[in-house]
Amino acid sequence: MAQILLGKAVADARSEDLIGRVEVLKEKGIDPKLVIVRVGEKPEDLSYERGALNRARRIGVETDVRVFQENVSTGEVLDAIAAINEDPKIHGCLVFRPLPKTVDERVICESLAPEKDVDGIGSASMAHVFMNQGSGFAPCTAEAVLAMLKHYKIPMSGSRVTVIGRSLVIGKPVSMMLLNENATVTICHTRTRDLAAAAREADIIVACAGKAGMVGKDFVREDQTVIDVGINVNDEGKLVGDVDFDSVEPIVANITPTPRGVGSVTTTMLMQHVVEAAEMI
Amino acid sequence: MAQILLGKAVADARSEDLIGRVEVLKEKGIDPKLVIVRVGEKPEDLSYERGALNRARRIGVETDVRVFQENVSTGEVLDAIAAINEDPKIHGCLVFRPLPKTVDERVICESLAPEKDVDGIGSASMAHVFMNQGSGFAPCTAEAVLAMLKHYKIPMSGSRVTVIGRSLVIGKPVSMMLLNENATVTICHTRTRDLAAAAREADIIVACAGKAGMVGKDFVREDQTVIDVGINVNDEGKLVGDVDFDSVEPIVANITPTPRGVGSVTTTMLMQHVVEAAEMI
Repeated sequence: MAQILLGKAVADARSEDLIGRVEVLKEKGIDPKLVIVRVGEKPEDLSYERGALNRARRIGVETDVRVFQENVSTGEVLDAIAAINEDPKIHGCLVFRPLPKTVDERVICESLAPEKDVDGIGSASMAHVFMNQGSGFAPCTAEAVLAMLKHYKIPMSGSRVTVIGRSLVIGKPVSMMLLNENATVTICHTRTRDLAAAAREADIIVACAGKAGMVGKDFVREDQTVIDVGINVNDEGKLVGDVDFDSVEPIVANITPTPRGVGSVTTTMLMQHVVEAAEMI
Repeated sequence: MAQILLGKAVADARSEDLIGRVEVLKEKGIDPKLVIVRVGEKPEDLSYERGALNRARRIGVETDVRVFQENVSTGEVLDAIAAINEDPKIHGCLVFRPLPKTVDERVICESLAPEKDVDGIGSASMAHVFMNQGSGFAPCTAEAVLAMLKHYKIPMSGSRVTVIGRSLVIGKPVSMMLLNENATVTICHTRTRDLAAAAREADIIVACAGKAGMVGKDFVREDQTVIDVGINVNDEGKLVGDVDFDSVEPIVANITPTPRGVGSVTTTMLMQHVVEAAEMI
């Protein structure tokens, strides 16, 4: 029986801290504000947006949502980003991705001012994460993984971590952030031979491949911590992670559930970045 | 008895290709040119510079060296970089590092135009390596490691690679480049527990910790390829790598010597970047 690492405890603790920091900002006349840019009405975007707006309300961060039709052009989104960059009352901007094919996503990511790039989508933010130098924000999901490990006091320094997945949104940045915490990091992916063996070597497994239930009981051994970043919809329409929870949980020491795991922490990390951006002014 | 992977064969093969490309450029009226910025007279800088100038002469790349006194200010170096950025006849610039303490090294690195940053010192170049997107140049030493593996047909895709060292000059970029080649990469460092075991798991070991002879016979097993990036001066004043060559060579399948290994390829990669930069114009 593993300890279940719930995201709520992490989000609540961080939110408490943020509420105090927002009060300090407001006393100085600064109202931290997040703008969300959304194209279309994808259910996963709407679900995340609801969570973000609720979290923002609770912490005292102002929000605004700019919605575009599915057939929007790159220029229209660029104009919106330019307005956000110029508006001193806006401290952070989240752009839902992937953007539709009518929009050049990389151009949009690069157009956002790095100091407002609170979900780390631009190359300046990426360079910051990679170099561990200068200022910038990491992608919120990667930050949420580290927040979970820190909150539950899972040691990272000197630990072996196997990261399954190498996306720019989570696999690569979380690997660099764990390396910066002095973990020994192995980055695995679809071409990895004997992925299960590489996973068993680890003290901590971070599953972020986006493949429902791929981490099974042959991937794990006792004493491990399993952090499940995947959010997939299975054949029955149920939200499931990259980890086959029911077969892994009885074996390992610590495990995050899906839902109620890492996903519950990301909107809080987003608010933390908005507050940090406002504090830097 | 291992196959000894000599750098010269790699450098010669790449140089042949570059000589042809320089001829094509010159027919178009473009003379590829590298400027080296050096502060002081450090023996290792002078030694690398001699190698680079020889390689440039052989390939047909023009060169110029801008030398500053040890007590130079950040502003003076910045002015030199600005002039290099503005000069359309200069295609690439190499800045010897570390710079003296009187100079803000990060400011200098960021000031160089990304399209002339042929040794990948700026954050735009780093972001390119990390994201595997857009244009930019990787650090030449990291590129030299991949050139060695490719030349000697050591398979990277699907292989396990243990990188020992996590510097921005070599460890982190080479890890990302190997990952982009579909290797499964483990990044180790001073805080890694049981480094020898992590090394033994690998098909390929890339030693870039900067510690003379640290990779000993307990780090290796048969069938491995050992790439030694370290260049250290030992107690007897002799150039030695991070690998204890004499004890490792009899065990493994392939190994690079020091000197005459990876170090012999870096100046050729530098020239390749200058030629590529000139070709992009």
